[in-house]
Amino acid sequence: MRALLLWLLFTGCSGGVGELPNIIIIFADDLGYGDLGVQGHPTIRTPHLDRMAAEGLRFTQFYTGASVCTPSRAALLTGRLPVRSGMAGDNLRVIFPPSPGGLPDEEVTIAEMLKGAGYATGAIGKWHLGHREGQLPTSHGFDYYFGIPYSNDMSPANSGGARAQTYPPLPLMRNTDIIEEEPDQRLLTRRYTEEAVTYIRAHANRPFFLYIPHSMPHIPLFASEAFEGTSARGLYGDVIEELDWSVGHVLSAVREIGQEENTLVFFTSDNGPWITAHLAGGTAGLLKDGKGTTWEGGMRVPGVAWWPGTIAAGGITQALATTMDFFATAAGLSGMATPKDRIMDSVDLMPVLQEPAQRVRDMVYYYRGRRLFAVRQGSWKLHYFTQSAYVGDLPVAQDPPALYQLDQDPSERFNVADRYPEVITGIEEAVRLHRATLVMAPSQLRVPEWE
Amino acid sequence: MRALLLWLLFTGCSGGVGELPNIIIIFADDLGYGDLGVQGHPTIRTPHLDRMAAEGLRFTQFYTGASVCTPSRAALLTGRLPVRSGMAGDNLRVIFPPSPGGLPDEEVTIAEMLKGAGYATGAIGKWHLGHREGQLPTSHGFDYYFGIPYSNDMSPANSGGARAQTYPPLPLMRNTDIIEEEPDQRLLTRRYTEEAVTYIRAHANRPFFLYIPHSMPHIPLFASEAFEGTSARGLYGDVIEELDWSVGHVLSAVREIGQEENTLVFFTSDNGPWITAHLAGGTAGLLKDGKGTTWEGGMRVPGVAWWPGTIAAGGITQALATTMDFFATAAGLSGMATPKDRIMDSVDLMPVLQEPAQRVRDMVYYYRGRRLFAVRQGSWKLHYFTQSAYVGDLPVAQDPPALYQLDQDPSERFNVADRYPEVITGIEEAVRLHRATLVMAPSQLRVPEWE
Repeated sequence: MRALLLWLLFTGCSGGVGELPNIIIIFADDLGYGDLGVQGHPTIRTPHLDRMAAEGLRFTQFYTGASVCTPSRAALLTGRLPVRSGMAGDNLRVIFPPSPGGLPDEEVTIAEMLKGAGYATGAIGKWHLGHREGQLPTSHGFDYYFGIPYSNDMSPANSGGARAQTYPPLPLMRNTDIIEEEPDQRLLTRRYTEEAVTYIRAHANRPFFLYIPHSMPHIPLFASEAFEGTSARGLYGDVIEELDWSVGHVLSAVREIGQEENTLVFFTSDNGPWITAHLAGGTAGLLKDGKGTTWEGGMRVPGVAWWPGTIAAGGITQALATTMDFFATAAGLSGMATPKDRIMDSVDLMPVLQEPAQRVRDMVYYYRGRRLFAVRQGSWKLHYFTQSAYVGDLPVAQDPPALYQLDQDPSERFNVADRYPEVITGIEEAVRLHRATLVMAPSQLRVPEWE
Repeated sequence: MRALLLWLLFTGCSGGVGELPNIIIIFADDLGYGDLGVQGHPTIRTPHLDRMAAEGLRFTQFYTGASVCTPSRAALLTGRLPVRSGMAGDNLRVIFPPSPGGLPDEEVTIAEMLKGAGYATGAIGKWHLGHREGQLPTSHGFDYYFGIPYSNDMSPANSGGARAQTYPPLPLMRNTDIIEEEPDQRLLTRRYTEEAVTYIRAHANRPFFLYIPHSMPHIPLFASEAFEGTSARGLYGDVIEELDWSVGHVLSAVREIGQEENTLVFFTSDNGPWITAHLAGGTAGLLKDGKGTTWEGGMRVPGVAWWPGTIAAGGITQALATTMDFFATAAGLSGMATPKDRIMDSVDLMPVLQEPAQRVRDMVYYYRGRRLFAVRQGSWKLHYFTQSAYVGDLPVAQDPPALYQLDQDPSERFNVADRYPEVITGIEEAVRLHRATLVMAPSQLRVPEWE
């Protein structure tokens, strides 16, 4: 770390510490590509997110690192594919209350890196990367944590499942303390928002990184009295509209402390919509399928970046980008280097943020658990396996692999493998290189008592 | 007509003739709900339409009068369901080159009405309401016409169909004259745009109604050299991006003549995307199916209204509205009355244009040809029949009818008929009243030589 600080002192980069930009990541849970007004939803009103997009940059090809919670969050915070960190398990496995594992200590999070550059670091919301001693946000670079450490359905009170009856009451934590059990979930979005606003106000004079992984709209859905029953879309819409309200408050707080030209805010989601939850799940719009799958609807999500004065207003970019790119972007902004002792899957997005026609990455890998299901190279996507989400079927081997031209066929309707053998050859060469570098860490997601 | 002019003189409405607002309707052909950037398409760039929406009002529940060309155009221009005017035929029948029929003389078009108020009236683009003597735009209230009188695939050069080999060369017309045969379709959008701009410039000092029914993106697709090969979406994207360019030029022309605060411009499409055309057809986004069906994707289309100073910038409305409502809206704006001697299906949209939370209609009727397939009442849609488009199957009777709650279930996934019998009762009462008033005019769409 000392070497990095020395490097920072000796480079001529813009960042004197006082000028380091704040970074806020707002991370919705299970919100789909088509769930925002500005992405075409007819009955969910998201005026604050629509305005954030109008004042900032909207990504139309923005990806998560996995199609379910735990690995997706690991990918975002480490800038690495979850299989590298051990945060990918069998199939769609995530961390459950009886899980002993968590994000390994040797992983470097964005928060740890930014602390090295002098940032204050806060996490407010759903963690889901381990909830045992030494696994919570405060053990992974965050000075402050407030929230529920895993999914909001993982309690006897909030799940109809038999296993969930053995879980402890849902904990609400501050730092490492459980401050409430089974908190009123109708107030969660509002409380997270109040915490975030307080955090922002408290850091008017110090660069900060604030990670806001909302518990909503993961089921069971809850909205506060001010929102419940107000959306034409029903409860799911109420929940999204309250999240939208929350985004508005976060941006207002940034303006209130006079830091709007010194703060990068990014809004996205951890994976696609939970379509099998029927009306309690969202929509991926024109994209195929949703959460838990490696079809586009499972891993392509809204992505909106906002930084007045640095990001031009009203842009739309088709550049490929992923949540893993936050790491390199934050590194670049803070003058820190990314870890050199491991393979990163992160590229700096600043060229795109400043010029939407720029391209910074060509590849996207779609893992389901620990198995590579599909690969995107440029506009092309090759599926080795496909599988439905959460309905118990087995992977379907696509043999020969199925090829889709996503820019022309975003809904993945037409397998054109027969017509483009040379494209497949090119992708398979990239996959060979990828596999050659891949050291798959042991899974942290086993639950011994279930095995 | 004289009575109407007297009425105009005697009312205290804002409209001295000099202040009558211009009205421009831009009508794309087969453009889907999800085909615009602002409606969530990832790889079609529509900056001009996105900006038109940002400066105006976007409808998320805007409907056509039918799921195919001819009846949809009749509905728009007459403010009446096509079954009332005889412009609905068997199944998905439209007008073909050998069709003898056309829009009946006794129908009153928006153009005829607005001529009565002193408007200049122009139609530039695809007519498709009859191309025999006395059936062209100039026989239905338009002072001026330029365009192709039916679909751009209806010629030996542009269709692979056997019947099309018997058609005459595709005519390009000015008023009632064929000025070219088989015009270079790559130039169509550009030429229509140039005609429209010329028309607007020529009417800086006189209220005008300009109807611009583009030939594109109906197949076969064509874009000019400046656009061909430029969209990541392929040729379909090139075509939409050129239409978007065209919209930008139309709005610029309105500004250029200083009439932007005195001109209502509305952009929409004649029906949903031609999904069975594969990549040559667009997308309905999260809506189900497309052109030729009575699923939402067939008849719900983009709707963007623009009138700086009168329509507030950046609004989104969930109000139900249809292309048939242009008639009553234009009547209201011009101080004319709608015809009293017939049943109209048109309501004035000005309350919504001025206040997006307003509601002006509760019902939408989805006819396929001459048969009522489905009905929307408020958020509820009841299907009596469903049928795929263009694949030769028969109507599937939904017996009992299938009920969807569209605001909550925009993709029509969940039939909830069992749970809401009282909703069905209410809709069926409305349908009974509708049927009781319905005088179904004889179809104009028969082709004797095919029978």
